[in-house]
Amino acid sequence: MSVVLSSIRWYLDVIREAQLADYGPVRGTMVIRPYGYALWERLQSWLDAALKEHGVQNAYFPQLIPMSFFEREAEHVEGFAPELAIVTRGGGKELEEPLALRPTSETIINSMFAKWVQSHRDLPMRLNQWANVHRWEMRTRPFVRTLEFMWQEGHTAHATPEEARAEAMAMLEVYREFAVTQAAMPVIAGRKSRIEQFAGANATFTIEAMMRDGRALQAGTTHDLGDNFSRAFGTQFSDAGGRLRHAHQASFGMSTRMVGGVVMSHGDDTGLRLPPRMAPLQADVGTEKSPGWKFSHWEMKGVPLRIEIGPRDVASGTCAIARRDRPGKEGKEFGVPLAPELLVQEVLKRLDEVQAELLERATRFRDEHILDVSSHSQFLEVIEQGKWARGWWAGSDEQEVALKEESGATLRCFPLEQPGGGGTCFLTGKPADQVALFAKAY
Amino acid sequence: MSVVLSSIRWYLDVIREAQLADYGPVRGTMVIRPYGYALWERLQSWLDAALKEHGVQNAYFPQLIPMSFFEREAEHVEGFAPELAIVTRGGGKELEEPLALRPTSETIINSMFAKWVQSHRDLPMRLNQWANVHRWEMRTRPFVRTLEFMWQEGHTAHATPEEARAEAMAMLEVYREFAVTQAAMPVIAGRKSRIEQFAGANATFTIEAMMRDGRALQAGTTHDLGDNFSRAFGTQFSDAGGRLRHAHQASFGMSTRMVGGVVMSHGDDTGLRLPPRMAPLQADVGTEKSPGWKFSHWEMKGVPLRIEIGPRDVASGTCAIARRDRPGKEGKEFGVPLAPELLVQEVLKRLDEVQAELLERATRFRDEHILDVSSHSQFLEVIEQGKWARGWWAGSDEQEVALKEESGATLRCFPLEQPGGGGTCFLTGKPADQVALFAKAY
Repeated sequence: MSVVLSSIRWYLDVIREAQLADYGPVRGTMVIRPYGYALWERLQSWLDAALKEHGVQNAYFPQLIPMSFFEREAEHVEGFAPELAIVTRGGGKELEEPLALRPTSETIINSMFAKWVQSHRDLPMRLNQWANVHRWEMRTRPFVRTLEFMWQEGHTAHATPEEARAEAMAMLEVYREFAVTQAAMPVIAGRKSRIEQFAGANATFTIEAMMRDGRALQAGTTHDLGDNFSRAFGTQFSDAGGRLRHAHQASFGMSTRMVGGVVMSHGDDTGLRLPPRMAPLQADVGTEKSPGWKFSHWEMKGVPLRIEIGPRDVASGTCAIARRDRPGKEGKEFGVPLAPELLVQEVLKRLDEVQAELLERATRFRDEHILDVSSHSQFLEVIEQGKWARGWWAGSDEQEVALKEESGATLRCFPLEQPGGGGTCFLTGKPADQVALFAKAY
Repeated sequence: MSVVLSSIRWYLDVIREAQLADYGPVRGTMVIRPYGYALWERLQSWLDAALKEHGVQNAYFPQLIPMSFFEREAEHVEGFAPELAIVTRGGGKELEEPLALRPTSETIINSMFAKWVQSHRDLPMRLNQWANVHRWEMRTRPFVRTLEFMWQEGHTAHATPEEARAEAMAMLEVYREFAVTQAAMPVIAGRKSRIEQFAGANATFTIEAMMRDGRALQAGTTHDLGDNFSRAFGTQFSDAGGRLRHAHQASFGMSTRMVGGVVMSHGDDTGLRLPPRMAPLQADVGTEKSPGWKFSHWEMKGVPLRIEIGPRDVASGTCAIARRDRPGKEGKEFGVPLAPELLVQEVLKRLDEVQAELLERATRFRDEHILDVSSHSQFLEVIEQGKWARGWWAGSDEQEVALKEESGATLRCFPLEQPGGGGTCFLTGKPADQVALFAKAY
């Protein structure tokens, strides 16, 4: 791993030079510039279609949430209260009740579900919104963690606990598919520990991505909320027998953080490397005699292919195609026919190759940087190297917290893909029935 | 005009029954439900493509704006200060400077333009964002006027005053085209008076739509901002000769208010009537033996066509198509072939007919409800009847305000299409070189 890549400086340079984002005037806020927003639009259009395919409908809920709503669910208020931005004045007057800018919308959506969900025939109810949210974070970084960010948040209501759980799992698979097939990010899907799960959820599921500096990025989460919010807000339906029951719910979100994930998954010393399916611009045609500046500009912006047409090429009816993901001679092919239909074919073929190879490389990188550990000292060593530690785990919540304080690494997830059988907890030596992944994270 | 149609009750009933929106927990906020949001998505996809076609790029600017930004442009702060929602606490602490939730983004965007616009080669710069905004309104109504609404706001910077003016006019034409061709709303494009223009603009242009109760709805606006904001924020570029100049700017917005406009332009006593190009669902197939409930449900939701298939129809290989815009026998055609390719052809043909006829009817309605006036008493009479008054106008700002206070009607616009020549101001008797439109408005 290059020193350049592992530095914050590299990331901030790329964000600035590729014009992905700029800093807003308020500390911790960012402006998403057109090139960065185009990446977000790629995510939006794929994910919006996938959610609709799954039966999720778009809606929009107010951003202003009465503070009292948060207080109805004990864990939720505890989790979010320190991060809230609060409106206390409106129309020139002090408000009677302060209003929070949504950090997430479980509470306000349940205040509406409580009206809309009356009968089992109203279920399942699957809604989604594309919206901005605010969390008053202290340490911020463009895309990765900002006071305000854009996301989609899905919220569903079901008749049974099993359906709510299945929804959370199905949405996790949608996120995994997006990350792998579009963003070329070989994420690991798993369940969060109790310590790390969403405030108010019964279980949280995650896709965890490995950045080129070895850190983990939580790239999307889904939650089995059980009936925690429906009890807090009185969301009840009459079942087929006429009995009143609480709805069981799921929620799920993916955000502009994913744009930062793409940057840090694929970038190199020259700048961005974009997977063709995410790239705002997929190929760059250069015809100048001295194309140095232009080429390096588009290389830095991560455009997957460069088509070079020189005067001699025109005479011979050919051009050269250079791949951004393979710098130098290795990635350059001469003598590609210039005839439009043939050229398009060649370009499409190479875009597929680039897409596949970025995923392959990231997968290889990931697998090389996950090490199995069977003792506390091995664990510390692996984390110290900036890698991920995988080991059998049967520690308590307190031991998990202590390990985090000692090493700086958090329990990223219990991967859904488990080795099977059982083993011995690397920390406590107790019998364990699943392995966990630990890493330092963004 | 039916009594039912002219009442607020009718509108609120339709919004509720067709499940377009619901009330949020905070006064004046609304929840946009899936059926209403689908109308907004139709607008979004058409308009987003049209803006991109024009060279506008999407971006995203922070919602939180330092209060001091507003104070830099004297008219702007005067216009918006009474409507601001203000964040005073974040992360558990009082903020040093209060932050406004954007009511519009001219100020924050200029704080960024001042960094980005350096050379004449950076111009024109055309950005747009799809975002929520807050205005602390006292009298609210779903879609038409809410504390929070969704919109797109475009912001551009140009080298000359002429280009900024041309941009405002070009975007007005985009809005007009959307309203007429998609929403079947025969809007009138024009310029606002000084009294009614945007706070901080040199000139504001508008498309004004007539609702079925005779009231006017401002359905989209574009602004020639001159160099007012670029002077306030120091947005300067060096021209070809190396001289520093202030940028000239335009901005333009269309909002979820347009959804309310569609409802109030076409609805009838039975509920919604949606233009096919805006309708989330374009046809409804009924096969039940007792379809009464279902038919009236979809009629109320404004689905343009209903395809009825009875048992005898199946035997004869035919069906009936009923048009929502022509109730009763007149709009029903029997013996339409059931064979899929023929049926699709018939349905598409009728959807085009419905689209065209809704526009025609709305145009006829509009023209019947605009009356020319040549005296003060005629003016008052026309406004009293709930119609629009058109007349030569050479009144002062003070006379315009007095007329509003007397009649309840505002100067909606000086239409771009003028009769030409000159006339006599209906109020002052002075020579006037343009006609103005006056109406009571939402």
